[in-house]
Amino acid sequence: MSRTLHLNVFIHGRGHHEAAWRHPRASTSSLTDIAYYENIAALAERGKFDSIFFADHLAIGRDVEHAARGGLEPLTTLAALARATEHIGLIATASSTYTEPYNLARQFASLDHISGGRVGWNIVTSWLKATAANYGDSTQIGHDERYDRAFEYLDVVSKLWDSWADNARVDDPAAGTYVDIARVRPIKHQGRHYQVTGALNIPRSPQGRPLLVQAGSSDKGRQFAATYAEAVFTAHLEKDTALAFSADLKARAARLGRSPDHVLVLPGLSPVIGATEAEANRLWQELNELTVPAVGLAHLSARFGGADLSHLALDERLSTTDLPDPATVQGAQSRAELIHRLVERERPTLRSLLHTLAGGRGHFVTAGTPEQIADVIEDWFCSGAADGFNIMPPILPAVLEDFVEQVVPVLQQRGLFRRDYTERTLRGHYGLPRPENQYFATPAEPTLAARS
Amino acid sequence: MSRTLHLNVFIHGRGHHEAAWRHPRASTSSLTDIAYYENIAALAERGKFDSIFFADHLAIGRDVEHAARGGLEPLTTLAALARATEHIGLIATASSTYTEPYNLARQFASLDHISGGRVGWNIVTSWLKATAANYGDSTQIGHDERYDRAFEYLDVVSKLWDSWADNARVDDPAAGTYVDIARVRPIKHQGRHYQVTGALNIPRSPQGRPLLVQAGSSDKGRQFAATYAEAVFTAHLEKDTALAFSADLKARAARLGRSPDHVLVLPGLSPVIGATEAEANRLWQELNELTVPAVGLAHLSARFGGADLSHLALDERLSTTDLPDPATVQGAQSRAELIHRLVERERPTLRSLLHTLAGGRGHFVTAGTPEQIADVIEDWFCSGAADGFNIMPPILPAVLEDFVEQVVPVLQQRGLFRRDYTERTLRGHYGLPRPENQYFATPAEPTLAARS
Repeated sequence: MSRTLHLNVFIHGRGHHEAAWRHPRASTSSLTDIAYYENIAALAERGKFDSIFFADHLAIGRDVEHAARGGLEPLTTLAALARATEHIGLIATASSTYTEPYNLARQFASLDHISGGRVGWNIVTSWLKATAANYGDSTQIGHDERYDRAFEYLDVVSKLWDSWADNARVDDPAAGTYVDIARVRPIKHQGRHYQVTGALNIPRSPQGRPLLVQAGSSDKGRQFAATYAEAVFTAHLEKDTALAFSADLKARAARLGRSPDHVLVLPGLSPVIGATEAEANRLWQELNELTVPAVGLAHLSARFGGADLSHLALDERLSTTDLPDPATVQGAQSRAELIHRLVERERPTLRSLLHTLAGGRGHFVTAGTPEQIADVIEDWFCSGAADGFNIMPPILPAVLEDFVEQVVPVLQQRGLFRRDYTERTLRGHYGLPRPENQYFATPAEPTLAARS
Repeated sequence: MSRTLHLNVFIHGRGHHEAAWRHPRASTSSLTDIAYYENIAALAERGKFDSIFFADHLAIGRDVEHAARGGLEPLTTLAALARATEHIGLIATASSTYTEPYNLARQFASLDHISGGRVGWNIVTSWLKATAANYGDSTQIGHDERYDRAFEYLDVVSKLWDSWADNARVDDPAAGTYVDIARVRPIKHQGRHYQVTGALNIPRSPQGRPLLVQAGSSDKGRQFAATYAEAVFTAHLEKDTALAFSADLKARAARLGRSPDHVLVLPGLSPVIGATEAEANRLWQELNELTVPAVGLAHLSARFGGADLSHLALDERLSTTDLPDPATVQGAQSRAELIHRLVERERPTLRSLLHTLAGGRGHFVTAGTPEQIADVIEDWFCSGAADGFNIMPPILPAVLEDFVEQVVPVLQQRGLFRRDYTERTLRGHYGLPRPENQYFATPAEPTLAARS
């Protein structure tokens, strides 16, 4: 079977470009108006995207003074969107560090029922100090410890999702039996970090469990993704690093006995689309001119653990010695390394670096015609650098509309992308199997849980 | 201004009667199918109810083997229902003991935005051992300690809901200012149980905060309700105890400087409706005949802290010495006391007691014609025993449909109940004011948050 391209839309404020909200093409909808997200989801569904995705932070962003960010909480948003859409997958970020496993397992199972099997969980371990301070976590746990906990957390929630057999609900009023309790079992988890007796209080969901998504890039992060993730979001400024990342991740999965085809790699791609190349570049230029250097500098500083960068001049060329050593950065080290490599390679001015990062925060940004955008997608996809893309429209919903109307048809004509949905679940769209239940054999008959 | 009757529908499985799901009039819908709840919500909205309500438990119920219980998680359910309804209020239970305050404050704020100001939170402190075991709480905290924590919890989440001024979002692309950060403040809560820096990462919601609902009946529980609750669900088998409860609660609220009109008392009422009294009694009889005594006995045992009651004979008259002393019961003591009083007063057989409790679990059950049901409602309402009712249809949606089509019109004709919605928010329906912000003066102009 030939490989199929997968596309996810990353929904972020009024667009991924830091200055998107200041551009005349940006929406003026309130970011706490659910209709704004419903319209974007409907548009993505019109474009036959596999899924939409919401990132998340558990603290108010530093950038909220000068950027249209934040808004609704992702899980409540997904529940509403489940009823405004029919086919598209719905992925949200939630933190394994700051959510009780019983609560998280239950809300995702509920969302999978509500959406008819279309939900995915982007697993994050939350490394911001500002987040820890909202959860009484004064001793903020370190990077490796966070992942140790995350491994146990995934073990706990996976057990909870399997604590009901698919056919546990017999729902037989005549006999007076609603649930066959022999097909529901306590998980009795007694681990180093978590003690959870179970069972979960909701029947097994259509997908068995949500699609598991991850975005870790460190060694521990990759090992975690190779163990659990079915789709991986990743940031690259060059095709070569994406290629190396994908090869490494799939090799790790294979070593763990998983099929490499069951770990899909989706690099971020922010497409700046124009009818001509010049028009695309003009849009890119307009967006960059609307940025506020202090905002970009604050973001850059955050990437390096809050380092003071105020002494750097905007229009002088940078060298790597101007930035802290990525190895000293707590948190998303890989993003700091990526910026280091860019500075080493291109020696940009600070202003130019801030513009590059303003578009995609370290993800790949490309400006061009619909055909040129499709060329990039085809090249990365066919070379194995990507199984698909996490599309990050610079302006929402305007450039997503351009993508759906102008880029998707080109991908369809080239035979790379679906012309219509053929499956009903998110795992179906991504060509992934429904997970076996670790406690109960899958019944031969379709079950209540699978039908509902 | 004359008082207005308030009506809430308590949605519970396929009806409140323990055997509802075995009755021919019960729905056969899956309890994990969101459409089932959407239909009930639409029906309640057709009846101009103030609100719908979902109870919750954080563990699998003991009764799931023989009763159609459980299903979707309440907060994700409310988000979906917010988009399937236009007017009706949406209330869900969530636990202050087992949810991080930042997560709870944020999900309810998000729901209030998604629903346009129609959400309410029924605050529970969770006392079941089976729940504690799902949250690594091996030393399960006691009744008074739970309430001490709950008081601090309400302080924390109230501060979080007030951490944005209503006009904090200025959303001015030309100036490059999205949020006026002088109108957002960290709450810097450093308490005995919680340390939360804040601010919340979502703008203040249309109602400022969810409507606060509570159902505590112990001394601590009443004091908590008098301090925070705006609506109180309560269980009574006699009008006199409801009257005393309401008087006590409103007096406590007044002593705390609150208006007694801002604490609405809503006793549970399970109406068994028939075209004639005989028909209503027949329905009641049919339901009781479908009960399984072992299920009722397990419920009764749970009410008394898991006491072994297996030695009691079904058809012999009970006396209070057959049951444990309510004062020794951890958890919902008031419900044990209510059962004790009933046994003292009526000396029922065990079978008869189980039937009484099968209908409403200690709430008032009445069988009769639509006029007779309306008479009970009018009597309790006019005498001050109730500001409204938590309607618990014995069979869902069938008896809710009877209530909407046959009882509501009688209440409307008597001038007791609204003929249409006149307000847009849940607080509006209940005649309650929007809370002031403890940190910021309310702006004179309508704000983004209020409009969205």
